[in-house]
Formats: sequence, C-alpha cells, structure tokens
Amino acid sequence: MSRQTNFIPLREHLLKVQPCKHGGLVRKTSQKYNIPEAEILDASASLNPYGTPFDHPYTGLDMDKILYNALERIGQYPDNRYLDFRNAAAAFVGKGITAENIIPGNGSSEIIRLVAETVIEKGDKVLIPSPTFSEYEQQCSIFGAEIQYIKQEMLPDIPANILKGARLLFVCNPNNPTGKLFTREEMQHLLNKCRDNGVIIFVDEAFIELADPSQTIVDLVEDNDNLFIQRSLTKAFAIPGIRMGFGVASVKIATLLNNARLSWNIGIVAEAVSTALMNMEGGCYSRYMIESREMIARERDFLMEKLERRGFKPIKSSVNYIFVDISDLSMDSVELTERMAKHGVLIRDCSSFQDLGKNHIRIAVRTRAENERIINCIREVIQEWGREQAIIYLQRNLAEAREKGPVGSNRECNYYPCHFEGQDCTFCFCPFYPCLDERTEGKWIVGSSGKEVWSCLECRTVHEPAVVQKIISALIAENGSEEAIKKVWKDIMEPILCSSQ
Amino acid sequence: MSRQTNFIPLREHLLKVQPCKHGGLVRKTSQKYNIPEAEILDASASLNPYGTPFDHPYTGLDMDKILYNALERIGQYPDNRYLDFRNAAAAFVGKGITAENIIPGNGSSEIIRLVAETVIEKGDKVLIPSPTFSEYEQQCSIFGAEIQYIKQEMLPDIPANILKGARLLFVCNPNNPTGKLFTREEMQHLLNKCRDNGVIIFVDEAFIELADPSQTIVDLVEDNDNLFIQRSLTKAFAIPGIRMGFGVASVKIATLLNNARLSWNIGIVAEAVSTALMNMEGGCYSRYMIESREMIARERDFLMEKLERRGFKPIKSSVNYIFVDISDLSMDSVELTERMAKHGVLIRDCSSFQDLGKNHIRIAVRTRAENERIINCIREVIQEWGREQAIIYLQRNLAEAREKGPVGSNRECNYYPCHFEGQDCTFCFCPFYPCLDERTEGKWIVGSSGKEVWSCLECRTVHEPAVVQKIISALIAENGSEEAIKKVWKDIMEPILCSSQ
Repeated sequence: MSRQTNFIPLREHLLKVQPCKHGGLVRKTSQKYNIPEAEILDASASLNPYGTPFDHPYTGLDMDKILYNALERIGQYPDNRYLDFRNAAAAFVGKGITAENIIPGNGSSEIIRLVAETVIEKGDKVLIPSPTFSEYEQQCSIFGAEIQYIKQEMLPDIPANILKGARLLFVCNPNNPTGKLFTREEMQHLLNKCRDNGVIIFVDEAFIELADPSQTIVDLVEDNDNLFIQRSLTKAFAIPGIRMGFGVASVKIATLLNNARLSWNIGIVAEAVSTALMNMEGGCYSRYMIESREMIARERDFLMEKLERRGFKPIKSSVNYIFVDISDLSMDSVELTERMAKHGVLIRDCSSFQDLGKNHIRIAVRTRAENERIINCIREVIQEWGREQAIIYLQRNLAEAREKGPVGSNRECNYYPCHFEGQDCTFCFCPFYPCLDERTEGKWIVGSSGKEVWSCLECRTVHEPAVVQKIISALIAENGSEEAIKKVWKDIMEPILCSSQ
Repeated sequence: MSRQTNFIPLREHLLKVQPCKHGGLVRKTSQKYNIPEAEILDASASLNPYGTPFDHPYTGLDMDKILYNALERIGQYPDNRYLDFRNAAAAFVGKGITAENIIPGNGSSEIIRLVAETVIEKGDKVLIPSPTFSEYEQQCSIFGAEIQYIKQEMLPDIPANILKGARLLFVCNPNNPTGKLFTREEMQHLLNKCRDNGVIIFVDEAFIELADPSQTIVDLVEDNDNLFIQRSLTKAFAIPGIRMGFGVASVKIATLLNNARLSWNIGIVAEAVSTALMNMEGGCYSRYMIESREMIARERDFLMEKLERRGFKPIKSSVNYIFVDISDLSMDSVELTERMAKHGVLIRDCSSFQDLGKNHIRIAVRTRAENERIINCIREVIQEWGREQAIIYLQRNLAEAREKGPVGSNRECNYYPCHFEGQDCTFCFCPFYPCLDERTEGKWIVGSSGKEVWSCLECRTVHEPAVVQKIISALIAENGSEEAIKKVWKDIMEPILCSSQ
C-alpha cells in the first residue's frame, strides 16, 4: 500500500454503488432554475396531500409545545429503548402488536438497511419485483447481494422455482411506483409460498395507511419469523423533514434487530413528534387518516381523468400517486420531467427504475389547485415542445431543400395523402400552425379532450408544390427564424389567400 | 422452515450480538429509583460541562429561530447532499478540509457503522486497543469481524507482527475511558506503520475539541486513503439529544461513503442545529470552545485532587472525564455506581469495558457545584457502605460467637496489635463507631483529606476481653439490630465509661 495511489479500503463491490435516485429535489431545482423554493410544486415525492396533522386544528396537536418539551432534554441522551414511541406505534398499527414487536428507524430506509445488513451474506440471492422502490437494490448491494429482478406480474403467485435458493424477497404493498395494492389474502398466500420455500419476505407497507390499512399483514409477524414489515411516518403524515419509520417483526426477531441497530438512532425531536402522531386517537382510523384517504381518492379520480384526456395512459392506483405510461407522447420521460421542472413543477421521471426505459412518470396526487397546476403545466410543456419540434423539423427540411429542393410527395408515410393526392409533404409540420386564418380552410373543431382545437385538415395551400417552393426560397433567405416565418406569412401567404377569396 | 419454530432469519453471528452498554441512563434511573429526572446529576455521560452554546448569550445563537426556520421545511425531504452542514463542518475542523471530505452521520456511531459495513468482510481481523469505546466491537461484530483486543500500551509504536494480517485498527484519541491523548506526531507514526502494513486505521476524535484540537490529524486524510476520522457534536456541544457527528476522509473515499450511507440520514432539525453550531466564528477556537477547555482543565484539577484525597487513583486525563482506579476500595465499581445512582448521581461503572474487571469508574468533569455533589455523594456512599459492612461483620461475628465465644486476639492480622497486646479483635469494626465520646479516649484528628475524622486508636474499652464478652451476650440477646446497639451502649458502655472517669 506504499503511497497507495490506487488503494481503496472498501469492500470491492462497494466501488460500484451509486446513490439512489429519488424525487423531492426541491432545493436542487430551486438552485438550478433560480425559482424560489416556495413557488415549486413538488409532485415527485409522494406525500399525503392533506397536509400534516399540525395543519388541522381539530387534531389538537401543537408542534411548538411538542418541540418545547422535547428540547428540555437536548442535554440528555435519548432513552434508547424508545418505549414511548414503540408503545405508540404498536397502538397505531393495532392488530395485537406490542412495543416489543417494534423496531424504530431513522426513516423507513434505515429499516431496509438494518434487515439487509443483518440478513444478507455476500452472494445471497435477493428477489426484487420490477418496477419497485430502488432502495431495496441499493441497500442490498452494499452487502454484496446478488440481485435478481422478476416481473411484478409474477406476484402473488410466484413460482416455486423462482423462489428456490433465494434468501430474501422484497414486496412493496402498495407498490411504488405502480400504486398496486395486494389484498391481505394475496399477501398471505405469498407469505406461505415464501415460508414453504425457505425465503424471507420483507413487506414494505410505507404507503398502506394512504391506501387501505385493513390489508396490512402486521398481525402475521408473530407466527412468521421469516416476515419483516416496514412502516413509514414520512408519507402518511407528510413529514419527510422528520426522519421516522419503523419495522414490525416477531418479538424474537425484533429483539435481535433492536440489539443490532444503532444505539441511539432517533433524536429527541423525531421521537417526540412521531410519538405524538402515533398517539392520535383512532390510529390508522383517526379522523385525520380517514379524511386523508377520502381526499386522495377524490383527487386521484380528478387527476386520472385529466391525464386520460391528455392522451396519457395512467395506471389504476390505490394510493396517493399515479404511474403514467407516456409512450404515446413524442417526448420521453426525462424530457417531460426536466421541462416541467423549469416551470417549477416536479414530477417523478421513472427512468431510474429497473427496466422501465423512458416511457413512465409518477405523479403525486396533490390538492385540487395543485393538481390543476400540474395538468396545466403538462399542457404548456407539450405545446412548447410542439412549437420547438416544428422549428427543428422546418430547419431540417430547409437544409435538405437547400440541396435537393422540396420533399415532394412522401408516399411512404402511413398517412399519405392526408390532404390531397399529389400534395407536397415538406411542411408536414406547418411552420404557421396555428394560423387561425379561416381563409386557409382551417377551422375550430372539438378535439378528443372535449376542448376546441385548430384543425388544418382542409388546408391545401401550404402543400401545393408551387407554394412550397416559394415559401422555402423565402425561408432559406431569412434563415428560418420565428421572425422569418412571420415575414413569409405576410409576404407570401397573405397575397395567395387574398387572391383565393 | 415448515412452521419454523426455531427458524431465525438473521446471519448466525448476529444471534450473539448484545446491545452496547452506555452511560447517560437518566430516564431509566429516574424510573428505577423514583427520582425526578431534573434532580439527577449525570456524570456517566461525558458531555461538555460548560453547557450548550445556546446557554451562552454571547454566541448569538437562538434555538427558537433555528427551529422555526428548519420546520418551515418539515414537508420537504432534506436535500441529501447536506451541503450547508458539510461546508460548515469543513470550516469548523479547518486544516484545508472541504465539504467533499465530510460524511454527515446520525451521531458519530453511524460513522463507525458505515465504515464497519463498507470495509469489513466476514472473518476480517479487527484490532481494538483495550480499554476503549465499546461501539467499535459492537459495530464490527455485526458484520462478522474477528475482534482482537490489544493493550492500549502497545500504541503508538505497535509491533508489525500484531498489525500484519489485520484489516482495521481503531484508535480513540483522546481515549475513552482513559482520557489519554496521543500527540499528532505519535498518531502520524502510527498511521505510517498502518500504511506500511496494509492496515486501515479509524481514528475517533469525538472528544478532541474538549482536549486539544491542534493534535488532530484530519489534514492527513487526503494523502492516506487508509485513514478514516470521526468527529462528534454530541460531546463538544453537549447536545446528545440531537444526533450528529461526521466522518472525514479523502475526497475519493468520502464520495464512496456518501454514496453508501442512507439517502436521508439527517433530519432537518439536526441539520439546522448542527450547521449553526459548526458555523460559530472561530470553529474549534471559538470563544465558546476555548472557555470550555479552560473550564474543563480547572474543574478536572479540582476533581482529581478530591479523588486522590479520597484514596482513589485517578488517571491523568487530557479531557472532560477521569478514569479512576478504585481497587483500594473494598466496594467494587458495580456496587459504588449502583449506590451512587440511588442518591441520584450517575457515574460510569467501567466493568462493561473489555478486560477491566470491577475496579474502575469513569467520572465526567462537571461544574464546580456538581463536582462537589459527586465528591460528597462518594463520601456518603462509602460511609453508608462502611456502616452496613460493620453491621454485617458484627452479625457474622455474633453468629460465630454464639458457637465459639469471642474471636480473641487475631494474631494473624497484619495490623495486630492495633490497640494493645492481648486485645480482643471481635469488634475490629466497632459497632458504636463513631461514638464521639471522649471518655473512650477516642478523639478528633486531622485526616489525610485535611478534614477532621474521629479516631479511636486510643480506645481500649471495646477490645477488653471481659467487655467484649458482655457486649456479645447483650447483642446476641437483642439480635444485633441498630436499636440493639443503642441499647447496649446505654446498658453496658455507659456504666463502664462512667466508672472509668
């Protein structure tokens, strides 16, 4: 190791580990595009849109008081049994769970980490149904697991030959990013299959309170030492700034995990806030949680309909986010997400999820006003994209026309002849769209979204070979700029349209 | 695994992992002995006795304002680059360190964990100099390390044959619990030896700000990829309720560790408070830190002197705690610690440290008033113990006397004859001590502590065989209770003392 220029002291497989990609990059976006943080709408992180319980006076929760009491003990190590929190969390989930089943976590991802580090031997096979939350792969990779991706569709009736030889299977229920929720019976079936094949199952129920908490299988931990469950406070209570989640396991396993976790993994503020939230009367069925689910269902329907009208294919969701197939859009998910971010609206590009390519986005269900802003932003970005594409297309055609003249009739196009036999296809994307000039035979029609759109199906003018020739010559002379297009309209189109009247 | 009654899904070596023992059990003690938390003096956790910077108005730090600003972002994921904190921490340690060298940690123990999980392959040999902080063993055991304890005295000039084949060496500087600080030169020598032998070295500088920050070796990380350094905010700023520490490594290694750590390991409150503390003008040499060190030196001297006078052997310390050899005391460290806890004073029993047995305690240096309370509590507990031992001794002697009569002269005792030739040694511990009755020839003398103590060296009465016989008979009749002792004094001693006047 002398002067060790290339010495890296870490386990070899760690050299390849990259940080997980996540949504919620409000600050980064603010800095990148110089937009004040308060003006950014974050629909990339999937938080309860109903707000925190502190936003609703009827909960009786007073953040100032909780903080004041907590900070009285800033000079004292937390009592690392965390009994107040664990008792409260047990009561929150109900179903006979006690404090002894609970493992507190610095965010639910610490629970994933804790299970990965205590369960995985280097080389163990870990099954991850794709697409799903990317932390499973990340955390398991750190401990040298061999990740095997399987299709989500294989669940819950996963074939024994797939399970055989695997150490651990991750199931996110409801799944992130797809929003699919397995029923309790389906999960029970899956659990049995795992048990019969000697596989440990990690069930991530981080979003279950926002979907349907009656589908939980927490009550099965005591009879199944191969079952780990994870819950999160971040999403259900919209408090990602306070890191808090917990694991649920049999008393035997939870005791071992509590021995193995960091001595003081939770600070006094997170403990105090979380304990107060878990202690809200009614637990998973408090007024706050019930109203949250009602609002999510209502707003999800609203958003689904708007997305469908837009021509997207949103997937039916059980929870506070919608997974959207945008493969019919000419823009990919990276482009769409980035363009929306410039407008201050964050959605989740799903291209970082395993096997998804660039055809999917995830949109968090927000308040009505925010959902409208999301939809409007999508429309604006698509229009902006369309205008830019038209210019690019035009530039390209002009460059070709400079050498070879007009495109002529493109008889290989599936849509030919969209206007008339013998049409010139150079201006497939019309540089003047939407001209809104009825002299072209263009007109307003009702589109598939129910809104009026400008249709130029009846326009022949810009496809007449002679006109095309004139426009091209003029545009080449003016270099195809937006100004040039206005000038060409005035100099060439106006006289033609006037004379045709 | 069918019905898996004995199935444990964790890695096998984890079944033996026990939670680390630590000081600071204020709440547990409060519950156990029913003492209000506010009345408990905690000298078992080693925190800066000067208080938090929030206790000193000249720092200009306003906790309420920091919290208010932080909680504005409760609904937002923390920016997990943690650049504000990392920049502030880099400026605090100085020496050319930049944000890119810093790895934020949820308490410094998360840094130990992160290094253990990224460096250790199961079976790797880890060297730990004993006695030292017990988290090193705990965290490394979780990843299946083979721990090899060596003597602290082997450092810094550790023999190459010990280093050979080891993966990782932990060094705590200054050391917990001994308080010994290696100089920068000594550490540099040790680092070179490690490098030459292919050993990674983890230097825990958690207490260095409270000792002498000029001895740090943070500036050597960039040239030594085998060097990890850990710092803590808990101790230096007396804020254990807020979990915060950080690691320092070369940019290359720090980048990898930042990739491997939990995505959001720090909540908004810990980040905001810590950033403010790290940003205090002067860094390690702020007025707050300088006055802290001055106070610690002054109070440590005070406490050392009192402990020496008590007959203890405190070890010279560089920092805010004192390691004390109490082997000359007839009570062991478990007993002393437990008895003090009943009085509401917590000190650290060191019997949970490797190889220490029950002869050592660690006492945190506190404020003058608190240090006096510690010393007084030790005195009270020793007196209480002495009285109880005298009773036990008496009961035992009475039981023997019932069968065999008085002990007679114990000529095998090293101190015989302490009163006079032919004395009866039954009441080696006098049941009447301190009678404060000068008729016995007992008297006040100045003891080694400078205080007056009651000396009964000149008293012959309770060692006269005839008197012993009478006292024994009477005590046996009364069963040797405290009441009986008073009665025997009145019935037997008074008449003898009166007649001898």
